[in-house]
Amino acid sequence: MSLIVQKFGGTSVGTVDRLKRVAQRVARTRSEGHDVVVVVSAMGHATDQLVELMGQITLKAPGREVDMLLSTGEQVSIALVAAALGELGVSARSMLGFQAGIETEKAHTRAAIRTIETARLRGLLAEGVIPVVAGFQGITADGEVTTLGRGGSDTTAVALAAALSADICDIYTDVEGVYTTDPRIVPEARLLREISYEEMLELASLGAKVLHPRSVEYARWKNLVLRVRSSFSDHPGTVVKGVDQLEILNPVNGVTADLNQAKLAVLGVPDQPGVAARLFANLAERGINVDVISQSVHGGHLTNDVAFTVAFDDMGPAREICEALAAEIGAMGVVADGTVAKVSIVGAGMINHPGTAAQMFEALGGAGINIQMISTSEIKVSCVIDRARALEAIAVVHRRFALDKEQQPVVLSR
Amino acid sequence: MSLIVQKFGGTSVGTVDRLKRVAQRVARTRSEGHDVVVVVSAMGHATDQLVELMGQITLKAPGREVDMLLSTGEQVSIALVAAALGELGVSARSMLGFQAGIETEKAHTRAAIRTIETARLRGLLAEGVIPVVAGFQGITADGEVTTLGRGGSDTTAVALAAALSADICDIYTDVEGVYTTDPRIVPEARLLREISYEEMLELASLGAKVLHPRSVEYARWKNLVLRVRSSFSDHPGTVVKGVDQLEILNPVNGVTADLNQAKLAVLGVPDQPGVAARLFANLAERGINVDVISQSVHGGHLTNDVAFTVAFDDMGPAREICEALAAEIGAMGVVADGTVAKVSIVGAGMINHPGTAAQMFEALGGAGINIQMISTSEIKVSCVIDRARALEAIAVVHRRFALDKEQQPVVLSR
Repeated sequence: MSLIVQKFGGTSVGTVDRLKRVAQRVARTRSEGHDVVVVVSAMGHATDQLVELMGQITLKAPGREVDMLLSTGEQVSIALVAAALGELGVSARSMLGFQAGIETEKAHTRAAIRTIETARLRGLLAEGVIPVVAGFQGITADGEVTTLGRGGSDTTAVALAAALSADICDIYTDVEGVYTTDPRIVPEARLLREISYEEMLELASLGAKVLHPRSVEYARWKNLVLRVRSSFSDHPGTVVKGVDQLEILNPVNGVTADLNQAKLAVLGVPDQPGVAARLFANLAERGINVDVISQSVHGGHLTNDVAFTVAFDDMGPAREICEALAAEIGAMGVVADGTVAKVSIVGAGMINHPGTAAQMFEALGGAGINIQMISTSEIKVSCVIDRARALEAIAVVHRRFALDKEQQPVVLSR
Repeated sequence: MSLIVQKFGGTSVGTVDRLKRVAQRVARTRSEGHDVVVVVSAMGHATDQLVELMGQITLKAPGREVDMLLSTGEQVSIALVAAALGELGVSARSMLGFQAGIETEKAHTRAAIRTIETARLRGLLAEGVIPVVAGFQGITADGEVTTLGRGGSDTTAVALAAALSADICDIYTDVEGVYTTDPRIVPEARLLREISYEEMLELASLGAKVLHPRSVEYARWKNLVLRVRSSFSDHPGTVVKGVDQLEILNPVNGVTADLNQAKLAVLGVPDQPGVAARLFANLAERGINVDVISQSVHGGHLTNDVAFTVAFDDMGPAREICEALAAEIGAMGVVADGTVAKVSIVGAGMINHPGTAAQMFEALGGAGINIQMISTSEIKVSCVIDRARALEAIAVVHRRFALDKEQQPVVLSR
């Protein structure tokens, strides 16, 4: 008998029929002899509708009232799921964040979980009752309702699974698992059986919306096995676990593109120490995240070009900051380009396969796609290219690494 | 400076625009220098929609889950009203039942309030913050969300006003106050300036849906002045207070009809002690409320007829119980009549005006309306008549007592 945390997202409980099917799935897991803790999100677009409602009242709602409002979405879901389980003859009880012992810091709309007091949940499990916990919400030590921000229900599920030492945390969603790339772009995209936390984190931060990075980081920290699967099928989905526990370690497990990018360059920066540091400090002060950075030296001129990418929405403010600094330090000028995208390959096995990056550059070059900037990490290679060719680039790279075919297990050399 | 509790019903917060107007009204009261505690219901038909949603899941939802679900309706309202007040520059904070210190007994869907710990609300008031409290909900000592049943938000408002020793409790609704009768039936119906708790209770139990009887009883117990008024106008509304504090004591303050009645009669009951008691005990066991009762003796036969009224929906089961008992005791038979209504006059001044009942009988008789049963209390006279003539009866009686005209203050003789 295992203890399984099952988390169902908004699409999985989007209608009464789907919600009933969620109850059936939970009941089946229970009847297989497992202890189950259920975590649910708000039904379908309920949260968006509440946000829209608040927007009609005020555009500067206090975070406290936003949390008070949005937390009702999950409250509706837990009551209905618990009742649906009851209808199937399964003993279940809905649990608000505070009832499930989820204490957060005192920060509204994006609170971090501080502690989980599991006594009550453990008591229910011991009685054979399935707790149905509201995702996305918690309570501060002084009794204020908080929410956990984007991906909050995933975080709730993972944190509960860790606190309860669950054997596995299933994240049910509307896709069958994690793919080598977006199947809407590349039809041959393959569903991965396994992926490491690290790869999942890179994929998530690169825009794959399956799991929120925070929950993956948390699972990695606690060494908790996650399973991403569809609530609409019985497919086993994708297991997310530690890189050391992976059976197969392909050099590349996924290709993805971030279309929400803009490139900025400060040209002819005098070659003085600390100039780049000032630029990035100024950007950070304005809350602008910088992604890929490259610096190129012009031989003989004693100046260089500093280029970097930011989220497309930050292009305007980033350009202002660059221009102010360029004027101050006597740089030649600033170029802003809102027509770029970042295409990346991710793979925990890359470290054992020298030349993986070169294969990607070749694939892109062979298709006549110009690489404007490059950034690499141990398990990732990113290329900034013309946005118009991003989808083509994904397909080309996917084919180059034959990601549609599962590769043989690799023996780790380290 | 007074402390005023203002309660707004579902219609008053039924749309975003109405909800903003509620905030404006609260802000105005605040700007007049009063301390205000706001209590709100769920928006419009939100509660009905949630009930409907649960009905699609199961027809036997546990009370706990029903409360978990329904309490979200008020939670949405308080967040929006608090945010709307903020938008007007007024400091406000939404309060769930548990945050407002409302502890109830451990009974779901119809919990009674046990205590209100007012420290937090008093703290907010002392800081100049308006608490916006969720009506209809509370929490048990062990942290379970409960709801207070029908008219629950009125109960919340009245209980809070009493606990905070508020100067007045305003119940904002979609009518201008309490009328002498339903203005849709009798256009000359007059809005009452004042009415006693006792009269209000009789009117409420007779079907006037302005205030829930439980909240009126509570206000009477605590001697708390209520004011029923419209959230859509500035009309002062109707003040509900102790009979001793009333300025005007009309013999009759209202006429009302209960159309949801059925009459049953057990005929030829042997004149033995305890037979009627057994009948009513059997009815009570099945949860059937008996209203008007009359017993008539047949001279010389040593039998009598026992007649009574019940809610129309209870006619079937009541008939079964009567027939079982009639067979057992050898009564002549049972008659059930589902075509009756009860017309009543209510007036705290009746006690000082002998002959008020006779005037009502004359009025009905003069219109050719036959009186089938009569029941009286200190402040009420009810007549059971043919349902088809109920609305006509209301108009006739309203005219007979000239209820469209406000009468002069009466000096109490007691």
